[in-house]
Amino acid sequence: MSHTALEPRPSAAARSVRSSAIRDLLAVTERPDILGLAGGLPATELIPVDRIAAATTAALNDPSSLQYTVSAGTGVARAAIGRHEDVPADHVLVTHGSQQALSLLATALVDPGDVVVVDDPVYVGARQAFEAVRADIRGLPLTPTGIDTELLERWCRAGLRPRVVHSVATFHNPGGVSADAARRRHLAELADAYGFWVVDDDPYGRLRFRGEDSGPIRRHGERVISLGSASKILAPALRVGWLLAPPPVVATVERLRQSADLCGSTLTQSVTAALLDDREWLAGHLTDLRMAYRDRATALVDALRAELPHDTEISDPDGGMFCWLRIPGLDATACLATAAEQGVAFVPGPAFAVERDLSDCLRVSYATLDPDTLRIAAARLGRAVAVSRGRRAGSAAARPR
Amino acid sequence: MSHTALEPRPSAAARSVRSSAIRDLLAVTERPDILGLAGGLPATELIPVDRIAAATTAALNDPSSLQYTVSAGTGVARAAIGRHEDVPADHVLVTHGSQQALSLLATALVDPGDVVVVDDPVYVGARQAFEAVRADIRGLPLTPTGIDTELLERWCRAGLRPRVVHSVATFHNPGGVSADAARRRHLAELADAYGFWVVDDDPYGRLRFRGEDSGPIRRHGERVISLGSASKILAPALRVGWLLAPPPVVATVERLRQSADLCGSTLTQSVTAALLDDREWLAGHLTDLRMAYRDRATALVDALRAELPHDTEISDPDGGMFCWLRIPGLDATACLATAAEQGVAFVPGPAFAVERDLSDCLRVSYATLDPDTLRIAAARLGRAVAVSRGRRAGSAAARPR
Repeated sequence: MSHTALEPRPSAAARSVRSSAIRDLLAVTERPDILGLAGGLPATELIPVDRIAAATTAALNDPSSLQYTVSAGTGVARAAIGRHEDVPADHVLVTHGSQQALSLLATALVDPGDVVVVDDPVYVGARQAFEAVRADIRGLPLTPTGIDTELLERWCRAGLRPRVVHSVATFHNPGGVSADAARRRHLAELADAYGFWVVDDDPYGRLRFRGEDSGPIRRHGERVISLGSASKILAPALRVGWLLAPPPVVATVERLRQSADLCGSTLTQSVTAALLDDREWLAGHLTDLRMAYRDRATALVDALRAELPHDTEISDPDGGMFCWLRIPGLDATACLATAAEQGVAFVPGPAFAVERDLSDCLRVSYATLDPDTLRIAAARLGRAVAVSRGRRAGSAAARPR
Repeated sequence: MSHTALEPRPSAAARSVRSSAIRDLLAVTERPDILGLAGGLPATELIPVDRIAAATTAALNDPSSLQYTVSAGTGVARAAIGRHEDVPADHVLVTHGSQQALSLLATALVDPGDVVVVDDPVYVGARQAFEAVRADIRGLPLTPTGIDTELLERWCRAGLRPRVVHSVATFHNPGGVSADAARRRHLAELADAYGFWVVDDDPYGRLRFRGEDSGPIRRHGERVISLGSASKILAPALRVGWLLAPPPVVATVERLRQSADLCGSTLTQSVTAALLDDREWLAGHLTDLRMAYRDRATALVDALRAELPHDTEISDPDGGMFCWLRIPGLDATACLATAAEQGVAFVPGPAFAVERDLSDCLRVSYATLDPDTLRIAAARLGRAVAVSRGRRAGSAAARPR
């Protein structure tokens, strides 16, 4: 039998999901000589490993914490997340990270060809989840104050009928910006007026180190599904995220989770619940995280301003894990190879593009490295950009007229 | 805004997944006065909680065990599972239980309307996974020696072109039976001849307490994807299952897992790898499990033979967790309420039916309860069946001629 016959002949759904440039870049960032600004990994040294170890030991005193649980999540975890998010427990569905919430919602709500509006640049995981259900994905250009609800309203008035509008409204990945309260209210009003669901994808909201919290979009309307996660505030390996929604949505998604992977881990849900419920410890831990990420963001942004060309646009985040850069004249994708030679990695803008040309943009994360290392990384990035822009200018000059 | 407007208007995919009777029955089995023969939970007291606690503590010495990992699973886990299953590590993809493997494979390989052949009675999770991708599901009647490959060959000769044939070939859930070596070989040959993929779904194979192991179907051909799980031999809450397949299939499924939930838990994959790699400990642990399940199976089957009507057909399993009963004249679904009154629960046959009439059948599990409790449960089931059959005979007699 020939090897070709063993190609899986993937389904249309499988063919519609593009591989993530981020994932492919992880291979590069794993080279020990490369300083990784590319990934979205929280700082390993800030993960509360001792507190997690203690909660795990306590949970294992009850062997039933190693049994199956129900698809919606353990009662203890739903209640703890409900308290953490200030919603009733029956509005909570525990998921395997918030990526699973996205994927289950896409399956639950979207038929092939349905219009789904996402930010442009987009969170790559959201695009993949909606690609997998073969949605008609439209990119709404992101503004410095978040999602462009005025343009969305014009689209709706002109006849567009989205099924879902997805946005990372707080500390956008990759854009770094947040939507203000007026835009949040406007988006929720449009959802009510035009009958779409808003997915308020919020893994970073607790990592605010500056400015005022505008609050979740669900405060402004009923057609809002919020996503949250323990990955960025506790630890990714807990694989605990959550979805907050009206109970009929929770029931539909719960049935799909049963088919997707039966249930989550009783053990890691128990550990997450214990840590979220320890309010005093959690408040202190979040303060530590915020201070650390503030110092890192400041170090990186200041160093980038010093090292990069004067016409570079840099988002100056109030929280979260990402900065978004625009460097006029740069081919960010071509620059990546030069950057790797210099010992630094980032994600080129086109990885996040829906319809816009983001070829002169790139995303950097300050979450993983300490301030001194971030300054070294910024200097390496500055050299890579200088070499790459110089080459491009040179090749432009050499072009026959 | 009316409440009705907040109904999610589920997608076609969401509407095509039926809720599982098993899941709905879990609510009943949680009543403390009811002896649960319904569930498929491994015995909590046989879970190696101390060994898992020690491996967890050891893993947490390295804080990176709380970070994200890649979608295919940690290198350590893939290698350990490869050794455990005697396949190369690049043929292994780690999943969130084997249910996720089913769901990802269904998405990867099946387009809406594609024919998928399953056992009839079917493992409910497989039916749900293939329903979610809107497959054309055909039930192949299960025989006492497993999947009916002769009938499948006749169907293929008559023009049926399945995309996937799914079977629990070893210690069938719910049927209790296993396919012999000749049927395994025949199935693999049909897969090569007609170009379908076999999914050899094997969560129970290590729980053999009697008879000869016929070996995995993949020994007989190349178009075979094997599924395995740590849930029944270590602990469900690890949420570690696996898929063994040619690398092109692994690559397709890996991309879909990225979209589905990004990655599994580095921590529980690390714990699973440590336990699978401790070959001497694992061998002893599996011997303990087999002896315990053998004693339970013997106790339940003997008690059922004594308590149930003489014309009852009882599968006498050589391993796994389930017995399948046929009690002529019983309406098993109607009997469930009577059984609950008597303090015992089971799953009625129709929950597992694809096309067959299984209304006089039911599934019981001996895994969760100890032998003495199983004998009490069998006596309760005997009373429920006597009452239920008596009622039915009475109502038949009272029917006007």
